[in-house]
Amino acid sequence: MKKSLLDFLLEGRFVSGEKLASNLGISRAAVWKKVNSLRKYGYKIKSIKNKGYRLVSRPDIPFPEEIKTGFNPKIIGREIHYFKEINSTNLCAKKLANESTKEGTVVIADIQLSGRGRKDRTWSSPLGGLWFSIVLYPKLPPERGMLVTMTASVAVAQAIKEITGLNPNIKWPNDVILYKKKVCGVLTEMEAEMDRINYSIIGIGINVNNEIEEGLHDIAISLKSIVGNHISRVKLLKSMLKHLDENYVKLVAKDYKTIRELWFSFADIIGKKIQVNDEKEDISGVVIDVDESGCLILETDKGQVRIVSGDMSFL
Amino acid sequence: MKKSLLDFLLEGRFVSGEKLASNLGISRAAVWKKVNSLRKYGYKIKSIKNKGYRLVSRPDIPFPEEIKTGFNPKIIGREIHYFKEINSTNLCAKKLANESTKEGTVVIADIQLSGRGRKDRTWSSPLGGLWFSIVLYPKLPPERGMLVTMTASVAVAQAIKEITGLNPNIKWPNDVILYKKKVCGVLTEMEAEMDRINYSIIGIGINVNNEIEEGLHDIAISLKSIVGNHISRVKLLKSMLKHLDENYVKLVAKDYKTIRELWFSFADIIGKKIQVNDEKEDISGVVIDVDESGCLILETDKGQVRIVSGDMSFL
Repeated sequence: MKKSLLDFLLEGRFVSGEKLASNLGISRAAVWKKVNSLRKYGYKIKSIKNKGYRLVSRPDIPFPEEIKTGFNPKIIGREIHYFKEINSTNLCAKKLANESTKEGTVVIADIQLSGRGRKDRTWSSPLGGLWFSIVLYPKLPPERGMLVTMTASVAVAQAIKEITGLNPNIKWPNDVILYKKKVCGVLTEMEAEMDRINYSIIGIGINVNNEIEEGLHDIAISLKSIVGNHISRVKLLKSMLKHLDENYVKLVAKDYKTIRELWFSFADIIGKKIQVNDEKEDISGVVIDVDESGCLILETDKGQVRIVSGDMSFL
Repeated sequence: MKKSLLDFLLEGRFVSGEKLASNLGISRAAVWKKVNSLRKYGYKIKSIKNKGYRLVSRPDIPFPEEIKTGFNPKIIGREIHYFKEINSTNLCAKKLANESTKEGTVVIADIQLSGRGRKDRTWSSPLGGLWFSIVLYPKLPPERGMLVTMTASVAVAQAIKEITGLNPNIKWPNDVILYKKKVCGVLTEMEAEMDRINYSIIGIGINVNNEIEEGLHDIAISLKSIVGNHISRVKLLKSMLKHLDENYVKLVAKDYKTIRELWFSFADIIGKKIQVNDEKEDISGVVIDVDESGCLILETDKGQVRIVSGDMSFL
């Protein structure tokens, strides 16, 4: 991977302009230019004559350079596109997928102007959250589409646990929940033939440091409001991509069993009485399984029912 | 629906130019022009001064005007595009879907230059067969994608039965079979979100009067070679679209039970010992069910297995 200035700047001590220039294979004047452009993005960089440059602080913005530092993924995050503002990261990712971008390409934006959730619901995406989409070509039958999404939810839960120490829950199929409120939602879009998914776009929204929109406080919560202080979006995203990279390799190797077990390690659902508005009507019953396609198996008054889609709530 | 000259021309007796002109709301000179352009397409039309025009014979070409005559569908075939030659009807249908064409739009071609089957296999599409695609917006979860395809297979089987008197079989999931050889294949492509199919393109190829390509005689067969004479492609297509129109209305009303029963009426599979190369490996077992997502339920040595995709053969 191409190294950038951030790979060589150090927090805590000075690095000479000469050394930076030789590491990057550019002139000292070019180093100076790069330092100034980083400053424009909010990086504080001290410079002293004859000592060189010292990184004082970095903004918590998920720049590709920040994510890529010390991260060598097999698939997820090999290519990253960052936008200050975008209509929707899913739309952009879809466009890239149609242009056959590298598998695992990530599109991330500080603000989504028209973020969307499942079922055409709007998804509030102000500054401070993590709003990103990932392009995948899973070569699995479309019946496994839900499992692709669940793999992403698991990676989000793993990352939240790793970075904050909190223990999130996954609500079927893929909301990540803390204190019974949503910290993360996932919107998957796919193009498929009968036997094979051509591409799958996983759109992920995590409420990190952002304010929760008026009227949504009963159902949504931010990590910052739980932990009590600012969470590094860069660290959280990096952790998520790292976990997804590990899980996704297992998924495409058709190790559905492991993915299902990982999912169950965050989803306390077996034996629970729930209600779900499936395609046709409200159904309630006791969860007896979630199968390898990600579908809910419910024991109801009328016998066993397999739920392929819907919104669920615990009774 | 807009009437065309073919709606008013009669086989067997003359219709005056004056009457045709008034029925169509055009001049007699314009009628003459239309008659000549039909002749170019292979329609034999006799014209005698003071008597008018008489349709002697029509070519068996699935022109929109031919299909639309006497056909008032709810959804399927309200819009029809005919091509003498095309790269692939599915590609064209996909393009129309992305432009939000009317649901049920049919794209048909006499010849496909690069027809494709499942798993990127080529699909031979010479003159004489029926090669067409249908644009659907089923508003069902993607888990029901296979059922959409099965609904189309059923309509093909119904049409073949109605027009030829033959009794075709459906081989899971959707090949239509006569004398153990393929008369029809279906290739479905879809774009979906997790909860909902955005569009589904059903590509259908029926071996009607076409020659079977060298090397495929062991696995493919044409209706003409079975019946012994030319089959009207226009009648067959019209019948298929009519049946699909009926079945599809039930499908989108989520009457999966009826679709499944219709499918079973052509698929003699329960209790049969089969082998299927599913996603991971070859599996053999006895079919105990096909569920409401269209998946095979097999009883195997290792217990019950649900097959979501694969090629099957009877043992």
